[in-house]
Amino acid sequence: MFEFKFKGALKQSDFKSVTPPGSAPGTIVAPPDAREPVITTFAYGKSAFVEGTIEALDQLEELLSSWPVTWINVTGLGNVKRLKEIGKILNIHLLSLEDVVNQHQRPKVEDYDSNLFVVMKMLEIRDEVLCSEQLSLFIGDRFVVTFQADEGDCLEHIRERIRKGKNRIRSTGPDYLGYAILDAVVDAYFPVLEEYGERLEQLEDKILESPEKGLVAELHQIKRDLLILRRNIWPMREALNSLIRDSYPVITEDTRVYLRDCYDHAVRIIDLIENFRQIAADLMDVYLSMASNKMNEVMKVLTVISTIFIPPTFVAGVYGMNFNTAVSPWNMPELNSQFGYPMCLLIMTLITTCVILFLFSRGWLTSD
Amino acid sequence: MFEFKFKGALKQSDFKSVTPPGSAPGTIVAPPDAREPVITTFAYGKSAFVEGTIEALDQLEELLSSWPVTWINVTGLGNVKRLKEIGKILNIHLLSLEDVVNQHQRPKVEDYDSNLFVVMKMLEIRDEVLCSEQLSLFIGDRFVVTFQADEGDCLEHIRERIRKGKNRIRSTGPDYLGYAILDAVVDAYFPVLEEYGERLEQLEDKILESPEKGLVAELHQIKRDLLILRRNIWPMREALNSLIRDSYPVITEDTRVYLRDCYDHAVRIIDLIENFRQIAADLMDVYLSMASNKMNEVMKVLTVISTIFIPPTFVAGVYGMNFNTAVSPWNMPELNSQFGYPMCLLIMTLITTCVILFLFSRGWLTSD
Amino acid sequence: MFEFKFKGALKQSDFKSVTPPGSAPGTIVAPPDAREPVITTFAYGKSAFVEGTIEALDQLEELLSSWPVTWINVTGLGNVKRLKEIGKILNIHLLSLEDVVNQHQRPKVEDYDSNLFVVMKMLEIRDEVLCSEQLSLFIGDRFVVTFQADEGDCLEHIRERIRKGKNRIRSTGPDYLGYAILDAVVDAYFPVLEEYGERLEQLEDKILESPEKGLVAELHQIKRDLLILRRNIWPMREALNSLIRDSYPVITEDTRVYLRDCYDHAVRIIDLIENFRQIAADLMDVYLSMASNKMNEVMKVLTVISTIFIPPTFVAGVYGMNFNTAVSPWNMPELNSQFGYPMCLLIMTLITTCVILFLFSRGWLTSD
Amino acid sequence: MFEFKFKGALKQSDFKSVTPPGSAPGTIVAPPDAREPVITTFAYGKSAFVEGTIEALDQLEELLSSWPVTWINVTGLGNVKRLKEIGKILNIHLLSLEDVVNQHQRPKVEDYDSNLFVVMKMLEIRDEVLCSEQLSLFIGDRFVVTFQADEGDCLEHIRERIRKGKNRIRSTGPDYLGYAILDAVVDAYFPVLEEYGERLEQLEDKILESPEKGLVAELHQIKRDLLILRRNIWPMREALNSLIRDSYPVITEDTRVYLRDCYDHAVRIIDLIENFRQIAADLMDVYLSMASNKMNEVMKVLTVISTIFIPPTFVAGVYGMNFNTAVSPWNMPELNSQFGYPMCLLIMTLITTCVILFLFSRGWLTSD
Amino acid sequence: MFEFKFKGALKQSDFKSVTPPGSAPGTIVAPPDAREPVITTFAYGKSAFVEGTIEALDQLEELLSSWPVTWINVTGLGNVKRLKEIGKILNIHLLSLEDVVNQHQRPKVEDYDSNLFVVMKMLEIRDEVLCSEQLSLFIGDRFVVTFQADEGDCLEHIRERIRKGKNRIRSTGPDYLGYAILDAVVDAYFPVLEEYGERLEQLEDKILESPEKGLVAELHQIKRDLLILRRNIWPMREALNSLIRDSYPVITEDTRVYLRDCYDHAVRIIDLIENFRQIAADLMDVYLSMASNKMNEVMKVLTVISTIFIPPTFVAGVYGMNFNTAVSPWNMPELNSQFGYPMCLLIMTLITTCVILFLFSRGWLTSD
Repeated sequence: MFEFKFKGALKQSDFKSVTPPGSAPGTIVAPPDAREPVITTFAYGKSAFVEGTIEALDQLEELLSSWPVTWINVTGLGNVKRLKEIGKILNIHLLSLEDVVNQHQRPKVEDYDSNLFVVMKMLEIRDEVLCSEQLSLFIGDRFVVTFQADEGDCLEHIRERIRKGKNRIRSTGPDYLGYAILDAVVDAYFPVLEEYGERLEQLEDKILESPEKGLVAELHQIKRDLLILRRNIWPMREALNSLIRDSYPVITEDTRVYLRDCYDHAVRIIDLIENFRQIAADLMDVYLSMASNKMNEVMKVLTVISTIFIPPTFVAGVYGMNFNTAVSPWNMPELNSQFGYPMCLLIMTLITTCVILFLFSRGWLTSD
Repeated sequence: MFEFKFKGALKQSDFKSVTPPGSAPGTIVAPPDAREPVITTFAYGKSAFVEGTIEALDQLEELLSSWPVTWINVTGLGNVKRLKEIGKILNIHLLSLEDVVNQHQRPKVEDYDSNLFVVMKMLEIRDEVLCSEQLSLFIGDRFVVTFQADEGDCLEHIRERIRKGKNRIRSTGPDYLGYAILDAVVDAYFPVLEEYGERLEQLEDKILESPEKGLVAELHQIKRDLLILRRNIWPMREALNSLIRDSYPVITEDTRVYLRDCYDHAVRIIDLIENFRQIAADLMDVYLSMASNKMNEVMKVLTVISTIFIPPTFVAGVYGMNFNTAVSPWNMPELNSQFGYPMCLLIMTLITTCVILFLFSRGWLTSD
Repeated sequence: MFEFKFKGALKQSDFKSVTPPGSAPGTIVAPPDAREPVITTFAYGKSAFVEGTIEALDQLEELLSSWPVTWINVTGLGNVKRLKEIGKILNIHLLSLEDVVNQHQRPKVEDYDSNLFVVMKMLEIRDEVLCSEQLSLFIGDRFVVTFQADEGDCLEHIRERIRKGKNRIRSTGPDYLGYAILDAVVDAYFPVLEEYGERLEQLEDKILESPEKGLVAELHQIKRDLLILRRNIWPMREALNSLIRDSYPVITEDTRVYLRDCYDHAVRIIDLIENFRQIAADLMDVYLSMASNKMNEVMKVLTVISTIFIPPTFVAGVYGMNFNTAVSPWNMPELNSQFGYPMCLLIMTLITTCVILFLFSRGWLTSD
Repeated sequence: MFEFKFKGALKQSDFKSVTPPGSAPGTIVAPPDAREPVITTFAYGKSAFVEGTIEALDQLEELLSSWPVTWINVTGLGNVKRLKEIGKILNIHLLSLEDVVNQHQRPKVEDYDSNLFVVMKMLEIRDEVLCSEQLSLFIGDRFVVTFQADEGDCLEHIRERIRKGKNRIRSTGPDYLGYAILDAVVDAYFPVLEEYGERLEQLEDKILESPEKGLVAELHQIKRDLLILRRNIWPMREALNSLIRDSYPVITEDTRVYLRDCYDHAVRIIDLIENFRQIAADLMDVYLSMASNKMNEVMKVLTVISTIFIPPTFVAGVYGMNFNTAVSPWNMPELNSQFGYPMCLLIMTLITTCVILFLFSRGWLTSD
Repeated sequence: MFEFKFKGALKQSDFKSVTPPGSAPGTIVAPPDAREPVITTFAYGKSAFVEGTIEALDQLEELLSSWPVTWINVTGLGNVKRLKEIGKILNIHLLSLEDVVNQHQRPKVEDYDSNLFVVMKMLEIRDEVLCSEQLSLFIGDRFVVTFQADEGDCLEHIRERIRKGKNRIRSTGPDYLGYAILDAVVDAYFPVLEEYGERLEQLEDKILESPEKGLVAELHQIKRDLLILRRNIWPMREALNSLIRDSYPVITEDTRVYLRDCYDHAVRIIDLIENFRQIAADLMDVYLSMASNKMNEVMKVLTVISTIFIPPTFVAGVYGMNFNTAVSPWNMPELNSQFGYPMCLLIMTLITTCVILFLFSRGWLTSD
C-alpha cells in the first residue's frame, strides 16, 4: 500500500502522473516499483462457489462462462502487458486501464458500453500514518474486477460472506457484489475518522490545559490529513450519487436501494469531516488565545516584580550617594539624622504598600 | 437517553456503527447496553381511544385492524428478534430496521412502498449537558410507529391531546399524528436554543468585562455544541422539505399545509443557530482583542514605572561611586560642593518631570 | 413596539414561542402583556374615502360590502377571541392567525385560498436602540388587513396618500395598497442603514486614531445589529421575489411591475448590509493591528529607556564598590587615579552613544 | 460627477433615496444640487451624421423621424418637468424615470414594451479619489438616450467613432450603439483596477519592508474601495448576462455576439477584483505577522541588554554594601583581600560570558 | 514568453488591454514589443506528413487543400496585417483575432460558424519564476491553428507523436489534434504544482522549526502565485466542460471521451490548488502561533532573569546606603553587627530560592 506520512498531502508522488505530460492518451506506464500482478478469483452462484489464484488467463475465460458471477481481484500493477491482456478479455477500455495504473485518480464513475468503471480510495491508518490506496472497480454483466497496487484491503468481510453464502450476496448479480465492495470501502472510513476524532479530543485537552509549542505542528498535521480525507470522500459521494441518480444498465433497481444506504454513509462521513475541520480551525484560535493568556501571565509577573522593587531600589540608591555631609548642612543631612535609617525604611515600605495596593486593585496579584 | 458531554461531538460512539464495516446490509446488531423493548400503544378514532402496553404481538394486529389510527411506541432497542417481529407485522423493510437500531443516522425521509420512514433527532439539555436521542418514525396507512432507545421524550403533549380529544388530532389520520410528532421534535429545539442564547449572552458580558482564561474553553464548548445542533437540524430541514415538496402516498394534502408550518420552524431554528455561530465566532475575536488590551495595560504600567525610576536611579548610582576626591579636583567635585545634594535632587526631579510629561503626552498615564 | 436592546439578538423573547412546544397547531395564546386590539379602517374608492375606528364588528362587514377597498388595521393582539372573530369575517386561516399572534415569525408569503398572507418586520431606531415589530398583512379580494402589536408604524405616508387621493392609490385595488405597505416597510430600512453607516464611519475614525478598549464592545454591538438586520431582510427579499415570480390570484400584472421595484430596494439593502458587515469585520482586524502597533510603541519606549540606562548604571555600580584600595594596588586603582572620574563619565557617555546609535539605526528613536 | 472620498462607501448619500420613504412610486424629486439638463444629440445614418445641442424638444421629434439612429445625451437631472417631457416623447415609463433621477440604483436591465432600460455605473479616479456616476441608458427602436448627472464621461471615443464613420457603428442600429456605450463603461474599469493594482503593489512592498502604522489605514481604504468596485460590477455582469441570455426585441442577434465580448470583460474585471480582495486580505495577515516580528525584535533587544547587565549589576551592588569589615572577619572580607577587585571583575565577566553564550545558543544575538 | 515575477499578479500588463478603452470592437493593435510572426506547419494524413515553415501564405492554402489535417502554429503576434491575412484564409472572426493579440483573455471556448475558438494559458516555471503565455487555438474542419506570443511551448511531445505516427493521432481528425494540444497544456500544470508542493513543504518545515521573518514574504508569494494558477485553471475547466457538454460540430463523439479525461485532470488540478491554498492559509496561522511562542520564550527569559536578580539587588542597595551608624544606634546597626554580611547573603539566597521555586512551579524554568 502506498503510504503518505506527515508531508503526504504535498508529496509529489501524490499528484505526479507516471506518464509524462504530452504522452498519447492510453499510454500505460507501470510505476517503477510496482509489483507483479497476482490474480485471485471468486466465482459463485446461488449454491456453490470456487475460490482460486489464476496463472493462465484461459482459466479466467472459463470461469466467466461457467459461473453467474466472477470476482477477479488483481493485486499488483507491475506488468503492463498482463494487465492489457486481462483488459482485452474483459473488454476494458484502454483509457480506463490507464487510470487503473496511474494511481492518482480522483474517485469517479465512468460508463463504458460493456461495463461500469468506478475509482475509489481505500484509507486506513497504519503505524499512526494515514495510508491511501486506489481501488479500481469494473462491474460487467457477469463479472466484477478490482485492481489494487498492494496487498491488504478492507474486503475480507465480503470474501467471508461469499464463502459462507448466508446473506443475499450469493443469490444476486455482480452489481450487488460491486455495491458490497463500495460499501466496504466507504465504511472503512469510519474507523479512520474515529482515530482522528480521538486525536482531536486529546489535542483539545492538551491545548486547553497548556498551549505547548509542539501542539501547533500536531494540529497542523491533523488539518492536513483532514484535507486529504475530504479530497478523497467528496468525489466518492458524487460518484455514488451518480450511481443512484443516473441509470446504468449494469445496476439493477434493487441494488440502487442499497447504494442509497451507502450514499447516506458517505454524506455522514463528509458531515463528520467538515465538523472536524471546523473544530480544528477553532482549536487554532483557542491555541492562540491560550498562548496570549500565557504571555499575559508572564508579563504580569515581570511587571509585578518590577513595580514592587524598582521604586525602593531608587530610594536606596539615593541614600547610597556619597555627598560630603561635612562640607555643608545641605548635603544629605538625613544620613546623620538620628532616625534617618528607620524613616528611610518606612518610606520604602510605604511606597511598596501603595504599589501593592495598586496592583491588587487591578487584580494582578490574584492568579487569573 | 444517550448523552454526550463536553467532548460529545468527537466521541467515537457518535459515529461508530455498531455493525462492523463490511457486514451484509440489513445485519442488525443491538447496541451492547440496549434496553429490552417496551411497547406502548394508543389506538384512537373520532370518538374513543385505547391506551395500553403490549406484551404479546397478537394484540398489535388486533388493534391495527379495529382502530382507524394506532400509534405504537417502542422504547428500548435491546431485543433484535422482537424488533424484527414487529417489523414483520408492520411490513417494515430490513434496511430501515437496521437504521432504527444503529442510532447514528442522519435525519432523513425514505419512502418504502407500504410506509414512510423518517429519522429525527430529539435534543434536550439535561444537567447542563446537551443530550441527543434518535427517534425513528414510520407512518403507514393505519398506524404510526416510533422507536426510541431510552425513556423520556418530548411527545407527552401529544399523548395528552389524544387523551383529551379536543383538537383535530382524533379526527385525522396517521399522517397528522406523524406531523404532530415531527412538530413536537422540532419545537423542542427552541428551549435548547434559548439555553444557548443565554449562555452566549452571559459569556459576552464576561468577556467584555474581563477576558479570563476559562472563558475560552467555555466559548469553545458552545461552538462545538452549536456544531452538533447544526448537524442535526440541517438534514431535518431537508427531510421536512422533501415531505412538503415530494408527493408521498401516506401524506394527505391537508397535512402538507401543517408540515409547511413545521418546516418554517426548522428554517427559523437554522437561522438562529447560524446567528449564534456568527456571534460565537465574533466573540473569539472580541476575546483576543480584550486580552490584547489587557496585556497592553500591563505593559504600560511596567513601562511607566521603569521609565520614571530608571533614569534617576542611574544618577543616584553615579554619585554613589567612590572616586577619591582627595586625589584630584577632577574626581567628583560635586560631592564636596556645598549644594551638591540639592542640585542632584533637583536634576533627578527635572528628569522625572520630563519623563512624566512625555508619558502624559502619550496618554499612558490616564487609564484607557 | 417590542424593543431589543444591546443583547437583543440573543434574548429569549426573540425566539421563544408563546405557545408551548407540542401544542396543537392553531392554538392561539396572546402574549401576556399584549394590548387590547384597536381596529381602525380606511374604506375608499376612486372618488371618496371613509376613515374610522370600529367597535362592533358588524360595521366591518358593512364597509367590506359597500366600498371597493377596505384597509383594516388592527393594533394590539391582546384579545384572542376578538381576533378570531375578525379572522372569521375575513376568512383567515387559523394557522396564519397563530402566526399573527406569535410575533417571532420569519418574513414570508403564504397563499391561502381566499387571501394572501405576508409577514414583514418593521425596523426603526428608537433612543439609539434597534426596534423591530412584526407587521402581518392579508391581501384579499376587497380588503387589506394589517396586524401590529403596538402603536406607531411607518405607514403614515400611505394614510396621507389615501386621504389626499392624488396618486394612483385610490383608483387601484387592494393589491396596490398591499404593495404600498410593503414598499413603505422596506424603504424604512434605509434610514436605519444610514444610522449604522454613520456609526461605522465614526467608529472607523476612532479606531484608526486610537484603538481604545470600549470600541470593541461598540463594534461588536454593530455587528450583532447587522446580523439582526440581515436576518430580517433576507427572507423579505425571498418573499418579495415569490410575489413577483409566482402567480397569485390577488396580485394583478400591473402591481407586479411595482413589486419589482420594491424587490430591487430589498436587494440594495442586502448589498449594503453585506458591505457593512464586511467593513465591520475588517475593522476588527484594523483594531487588532492598531492595538498591536500601540503595544509595539509602548515596548519600544521601555526598551529604549532600559538599553540607554542599564549599561551606564552597571558602570556606576562597579565604581560604587567598596574594595579597599589601601590593601593592594589591584583593588580599584581607578578610584585613586587623577582622571578616574572624568574617564568613567567618558566611558558611560561612549556606551550610551553607541546604544543610541544602535537604536537610531533600527529607527526606534523616531516616532513611527 | 458625484464623488465619494475615503468614507464614501458609508456616506449616507450613497444609499439615501432622495424621495422620502412611503412616497408614491413614480414620484420624481430632483436632487437638491442637481444641474439644469443639457441635451446633446447625435443623429446618424450610413452616410451622414448631425451633431447638436437641443433647446426646444420639437427638434428632438424631428431628429427621431428623419434619421435611422438618434443618440440623445442628457447631462444634468435638475429639471424634473423637462425630464418628464423627454420621457413622454420617447415613451419612457415613469418608474424608470424615477430610477434615472435617484442616482443610487443597482446596475440592472429592465424591459419595457417600447424600450430597454439599462442602469450602469461609470467609475473613474479623480484626484486619487474613486468617483462614481450613474449612467442610465434607454435603447429604443430608433434612438438611444443616456442620462448622467454631471459632465465628463468615458464615451468620447464613441462620439469620435460616429464622427469619423469608419467602423461599423454608422451602419448599424441603436442596439449596436447601446452595446458600444456599455462596452466603454465596462472598459473604463480597467484603468481604475490598474491604479488599485499599483497601489496594492506599493503597499505590499512597504509592508514587507517595514510595517508602519499608517499602512493599515491605507490598506483599509483600498479594501473599502474594492468593495465599492465589486458592488458596482457584480450587478453589471448580471445585467450583461441577461442581455445575452434573454431575448429582448431591440437587441439583434448580431449585437449579441458583441455583448458576449463585453460580458467577458466584466467577468475578467470581477476576477481581478476578487484577486485584489484576496491579496488585500492576505496583506493584513502579512502586516500582523510583520508587526509581531518587529515586536519580537524589540523584545529581544530588551531581553539581551537586561540579561547581560542585570546579573553583574547585582554583583556590583553586593560589593557596594557598607558592612563594617573592622567589626568582624565575617563582614565582607573580600573587600580587604588583595585580589578582591580583580576576582570580582572576573566573576562578572564569567557571568556575562555565560549569559552571552546562552543568548547566542538561542540565536538571539544574530539579527533575524 | 511573457514573464511575471514576484509582483506578477498585480502587474498592470496583466490586465491592461493593449487596445484603448472605447475602441471599436475588432480593433487589433499589436503589443509594442511583439515579435514578427513565424508560421510553422504540420500537414499529415494516415500514412505521411509534411513539416515546414511558411513564408508565402499561398503555401498555406495549398497545404489545407491537399492534406486531411494541417496544424498551423504562429509564433509572434507583431504583424497585425499578416495575422489578418491568415485569419481571412482560415475564415477567423475579427473579434476572436482581437482576443488572440490581446494576451490577457480568460481561458474560454467560443463557437464560430466555421471553427471553434479556444483560449488557454500555458504555465511553466522558468528561473524560479512562474511564467504564463496565452495559447489561442482554432479548430476547423481540416486545420488547427495555434497562436502564441513567444517561442517555447509544451507541445513538443505532440510534434514528436505526429512525426513518429505511432499513436492514433495521424489517423484522426483535427479535433483529436486539438484535444491533444489541450491535454498537453493542462498536463503541463502538474510539474508546476509539483514545484509549489515542494516549496510549501520546505516552507512548512522552516516555519515549524523557526518562524523567521523572510518566510512571511515567501509564503505570501506562494499564495499569490496560487491565485494566478487558480485564475487560469478555473476558466479552463469551464471551457473543457463546455467542450464535453455542449455539442460543437467540429468535435466528434469519439474525441469527447478523451476530452472527458482531460477535464478530469483539470478538476484534479483545481483540487490540488485549493488544497495548497488551504495549507498556505493554515501555514500563516502556524507562523503566527510560532512567532507568538517565540515571543513568549523571549519574555520568559527576561522575566526569569529580572525576577531572580531584582529583589536581591534591592537588598544590596539597602546596605549600600550611607546612614551614619555613629550618630544613632537606629542607623543601620546591621552594618556593624558581627554576622551582618553573612545574614545579608543568607537573606538574598532565601529570596532568590523562593523566586526560583515560584518560577519552577509555573514551569518557566524548563524549556517548553
